[in-house]
Amino acid sequence: MQFASDNAGPAHPAILDAIARANDGHQRAYGSESAMEQLRDRIREIFEAPEAEVHLVATGTAANSLILGCMARPWDAIFCSEHAHIEHDEGNAPEFYTGGAKLSLVPAPDGRMSAADLERVIGTPGARSFHNAQPGPISITQVTETGSVHSLDQIRAIGDLARARGQRVHMDGARFANALMALGCTPAEMTWKAGVDALSFGGTKNGCLGVEAAVFFDPALAQEFELRRKRGGHLFSKHRFLSAQMQAYLADDLWRDLATRANAACAQLVAGLDAHSEAEILYPAEANLVFVTLPRATCRRLIEGGADFYVMDGDPMQGAPETRLTARLVCDWSLGEARVAQFLSLLD
Amino acid sequence: MQFASDNAGPAHPAILDAIARANDGHQRAYGSESAMEQLRDRIREIFEAPEAEVHLVATGTAANSLILGCMARPWDAIFCSEHAHIEHDEGNAPEFYTGGAKLSLVPAPDGRMSAADLERVIGTPGARSFHNAQPGPISITQVTETGSVHSLDQIRAIGDLARARGQRVHMDGARFANALMALGCTPAEMTWKAGVDALSFGGTKNGCLGVEAAVFFDPALAQEFELRRKRGGHLFSKHRFLSAQMQAYLADDLWRDLATRANAACAQLVAGLDAHSEAEILYPAEANLVFVTLPRATCRRLIEGGADFYVMDGDPMQGAPETRLTARLVCDWSLGEARVAQFLSLLD
Amino acid sequence: MQFASDNAGPAHPAILDAIARANDGHQRAYGSESAMEQLRDRIREIFEAPEAEVHLVATGTAANSLILGCMARPWDAIFCSEHAHIEHDEGNAPEFYTGGAKLSLVPAPDGRMSAADLERVIGTPGARSFHNAQPGPISITQVTETGSVHSLDQIRAIGDLARARGQRVHMDGARFANALMALGCTPAEMTWKAGVDALSFGGTKNGCLGVEAAVFFDPALAQEFELRRKRGGHLFSKHRFLSAQMQAYLADDLWRDLATRANAACAQLVAGLDAHSEAEILYPAEANLVFVTLPRATCRRLIEGGADFYVMDGDPMQGAPETRLTARLVCDWSLGEARVAQFLSLLD
Amino acid sequence: MQFASDNAGPAHPAILDAIARANDGHQRAYGSESAMEQLRDRIREIFEAPEAEVHLVATGTAANSLILGCMARPWDAIFCSEHAHIEHDEGNAPEFYTGGAKLSLVPAPDGRMSAADLERVIGTPGARSFHNAQPGPISITQVTETGSVHSLDQIRAIGDLARARGQRVHMDGARFANALMALGCTPAEMTWKAGVDALSFGGTKNGCLGVEAAVFFDPALAQEFELRRKRGGHLFSKHRFLSAQMQAYLADDLWRDLATRANAACAQLVAGLDAHSEAEILYPAEANLVFVTLPRATCRRLIEGGADFYVMDGDPMQGAPETRLTARLVCDWSLGEARVAQFLSLLD
Repeated sequence: MQFASDNAGPAHPAILDAIARANDGHQRAYGSESAMEQLRDRIREIFEAPEAEVHLVATGTAANSLILGCMARPWDAIFCSEHAHIEHDEGNAPEFYTGGAKLSLVPAPDGRMSAADLERVIGTPGARSFHNAQPGPISITQVTETGSVHSLDQIRAIGDLARARGQRVHMDGARFANALMALGCTPAEMTWKAGVDALSFGGTKNGCLGVEAAVFFDPALAQEFELRRKRGGHLFSKHRFLSAQMQAYLADDLWRDLATRANAACAQLVAGLDAHSEAEILYPAEANLVFVTLPRATCRRLIEGGADFYVMDGDPMQGAPETRLTARLVCDWSLGEARVAQFLSLLD
Repeated sequence: MQFASDNAGPAHPAILDAIARANDGHQRAYGSESAMEQLRDRIREIFEAPEAEVHLVATGTAANSLILGCMARPWDAIFCSEHAHIEHDEGNAPEFYTGGAKLSLVPAPDGRMSAADLERVIGTPGARSFHNAQPGPISITQVTETGSVHSLDQIRAIGDLARARGQRVHMDGARFANALMALGCTPAEMTWKAGVDALSFGGTKNGCLGVEAAVFFDPALAQEFELRRKRGGHLFSKHRFLSAQMQAYLADDLWRDLATRANAACAQLVAGLDAHSEAEILYPAEANLVFVTLPRATCRRLIEGGADFYVMDGDPMQGAPETRLTARLVCDWSLGEARVAQFLSLLD
Repeated sequence: MQFASDNAGPAHPAILDAIARANDGHQRAYGSESAMEQLRDRIREIFEAPEAEVHLVATGTAANSLILGCMARPWDAIFCSEHAHIEHDEGNAPEFYTGGAKLSLVPAPDGRMSAADLERVIGTPGARSFHNAQPGPISITQVTETGSVHSLDQIRAIGDLARARGQRVHMDGARFANALMALGCTPAEMTWKAGVDALSFGGTKNGCLGVEAAVFFDPALAQEFELRRKRGGHLFSKHRFLSAQMQAYLADDLWRDLATRANAACAQLVAGLDAHSEAEILYPAEANLVFVTLPRATCRRLIEGGADFYVMDGDPMQGAPETRLTARLVCDWSLGEARVAQFLSLLD
Repeated sequence: MQFASDNAGPAHPAILDAIARANDGHQRAYGSESAMEQLRDRIREIFEAPEAEVHLVATGTAANSLILGCMARPWDAIFCSEHAHIEHDEGNAPEFYTGGAKLSLVPAPDGRMSAADLERVIGTPGARSFHNAQPGPISITQVTETGSVHSLDQIRAIGDLARARGQRVHMDGARFANALMALGCTPAEMTWKAGVDALSFGGTKNGCLGVEAAVFFDPALAQEFELRRKRGGHLFSKHRFLSAQMQAYLADDLWRDLATRANAACAQLVAGLDAHSEAEILYPAEANLVFVTLPRATCRRLIEGGADFYVMDGDPMQGAPETRLTARLVCDWSLGEARVAQFLSLLD
């Protein structure tokens, strides 16, 4: 019963098959393999964005940081939610890749920052002088780190604010497919049509081995990307093994199917938790992860029963049994209905 | 007939099989999978270095730059050959990862820098003040970029100089196995026993998909590695797919066998070129690559006959047919005797 | 009636005289002039810190950033007040000089952060992994940006927390003398005896042309300072014009006298504001600056009467006359009783 | 008899007077004082460049590094002479301020690099891919570090090459006035008319306390300068003390007079050395510094007679008396005919 992370799950067999098929003799290195051209076109098609620029890297931190490096100058502030992965979980990579830009945090009570709070943190137009960090890009995470999903209206409000201020919008889409399935909209609606300029389009958490696409809806922003990727050591020589993964991921709606499975497992889990008097769900759990508080004794019973998950604020095995602890439960594509049911049965 | 790069070649099937086997349900992420522990022990065993610290990344530029980041301070000079990959082919990644260290180039007529030339470039002990770049690590490439291989004596001379000066030695071993097979020595003899403190131990060019090990013979140098790797975006979440590759690479002497095949192909090629009046070999070709000058007409005939290789100094298809051009020919593990013979037959 | 900034005021004549006296023929460059040795000893004496390392730069941002560069690693978080100058007014210089460290903000309702709030932001010992920014130095500003002054107990509480956690403490003392006169303690009591490891000791705001001392009570922290200063372009060739300023500043208690004058002017101002029904003072004004809210009409009357000061949150000349605006009033050594009285007379 | 550096000499009294005059009550801080406007216009007039952008900093390393930061991207190579100050004497500041650009060295037998050698090092147009450092700005030093002066033809040849390649040209003019007096041309002829895009215009070595102007003939290059200067900690709050220096320096041809004096002293010195059988002058000494080889015994006699100068390649006081050593002799504006004569008398 693995709820620790969608990073800990397996790759889908179709991804592995694609890698094996790509291992066909000599091919041009460094992203000039023909599959990359086909993939670029495919992503443009999916996003209804014929001008989009597309590049691949192997990790989400690389995608986020390289994109932000293209969008922010070293003296800028990047505006993001107080929960943002780029703030908390990337080891100062955004600061490294931007040459020292600052992350300015916006309150986000349920994981989503409102345009109003964002505007307050950015401040009055023109109020910043060269003493201050300059207004740089806005970065939103979709699915958020707390499991909530920005509505199209919320994204649009941020996009409108950015446009009015001459700022740009980045979306950290490590769980893009899960958000898309949650909203039931098109990829274009959730991105450039709502004001998103560049996207980290995740594959790793949703069934790939390790591949993320940097998708620039404004290709002008991508001008430095290849130079930055090389300088960051993120250009694969045997790049075909990245493009093969992403091709298979997007073929036959695999990416949507896997996200649907993960979201369904989470919905089953949420329903079970909701029905349980001891569990208190903390944020809207709209995709494939949920934060819930439980008494320590319950956490312990779950762990001893074979469940694996993160407890955010204390040791589940030691301390007063009634103390409430916060558990993060993540469902990946491979989890399945039976394991969720097994987990829920331990609750009772 | 692919002589363009060992980067353009396929992975060995055993590597792919290992990846498929590693895709077994949920596993701990970020390098804490049990296979990584086993691999670390295996590398320590191979190098007779029970204290060595070992980490994995996916590209050679990442390995070199992260290691140099651990060894050099931002105000240092890194001393390397005038041909060095870190100087010419990594898009300023070493400067990026060191926070702006300078690469100071040492003449290397046949690809190898002598300890004497190195000493001249470093300068008199104590002569550098805070106005100048400080004496930082020395980086040597083994196999060199020109195809020559440092003898153990040559490495030891550099190691001795470094030790005497309080400087450290890095080895860029993107083609480590090819050098090892060329010298017929042990991994320990070619590294720490000769004064090497840290090694980029390549897998990608010799049959892996994309994996390189950073091996620190002095574990004190590795203290910052994990923080630097995360900050660089080079920590894989599904790290098991890196450790699986490297485990398979080192199992059953696969790494040695593949290097032996590549070197043999190159030896066959060199023998053929040597016997040909039009070809002039430029540097000692001791491992799996050779630089040779040929008349443009010959280059063109080879290309039209189906050979793929880099011409370093001109367009092989246009210009005076008698002009001599420099070709770089790289043999990978998969090339094979027949293709080399076919290539040589085109020469006649 | 200049209340805009102590940066806008004149240098004291004794400082100019010292510069003229230092202009005596040829002298050794780059900080090796004999006056620097004398100054270093003098500062050690004043701080009762015979081991302290002392260096000079020309700006406060340089002092803060170079010191933080010595104290923080690129993957660290620096903890500071939400009002901190290093966060808001240094154009990302701390991020630049640390190679991308992150500033983590601590609530500070009156300008001072409490040890308890600081502890909450740092988090549980050991809770941060390599995914997160590491616990780096704590930086406090004395006088704070809001005009309050940390008590010795408050500094000690932060120093104790730092010591317990293995973190270090930096003090931004751009207005050090003003704080010292406010507290009536010794320089040692306000710094190393309370747990401060390194100090930006300001001269510029208190009567110098442009000089700040970096004072390292733990000399081990200063090991890289000279290399970092040179690399930052902050090493003066004609360094004697820096040491001369600081020598004159510290001679005959000039630094204390000038701070006393500035603080007295501010006390007079605060007393006048306190007595005025329209004025609401926002923070404890314990040194030489005060934040006060006033109706726009009053702000406008002051400005039209010849007062110069910053209005933080709106245009004082346009808008509803009754709207309250926040004014920052800074008193420098040269302001004098008469000008403060003139200012207060405009209030009535 | 001070020949160690023009950095070790005094400021001219007129510069000190100007600083004292500028110390007149409160003035706007951070470069918005009215004197800066006047100075900007004056420099535009002197350079016949009404569009030029002008900013001040206190050190030559800051001027060079901030300008190069505006001109080079982190993945660029900056091309400069093998003797360049930015390569050897700025503690990796150019690398720091450019975010890790590489300095690529061009042979310069007498201190000046030829356009032909420069072209060879830059390489064939289009030959560099994203693996390689990109072609960035070219930096020339005028007066060169060896004491020679580029002719207008030489600068133009470099400017033409840069223009043809889409690269830009920086001039390190730490001794700009000395070069100008040596060539007898106009400031415009030596800079933008010859293809120079940005200039470090030195004041410190020629009679100021510490001030250098960054002059951008292409104002588009200056867009980031103020943000970069602030981020580097190089923005003076009491900026009037920089503008006052530079104003006085340029008033009444003081800058030309001082350079003329320094050059005359050097010419006298060179004539004396030329006439001496023991002395061998190494490079054309066309401005205010000369490199000369002398027997150790002679160096020692000079030092014991009271002369102060750098010996580049050995200890003048210890070793075989007949060994030839290289001395660098720099003449500043304050040196005077009598001291040169005294020095030469020691030679005999």
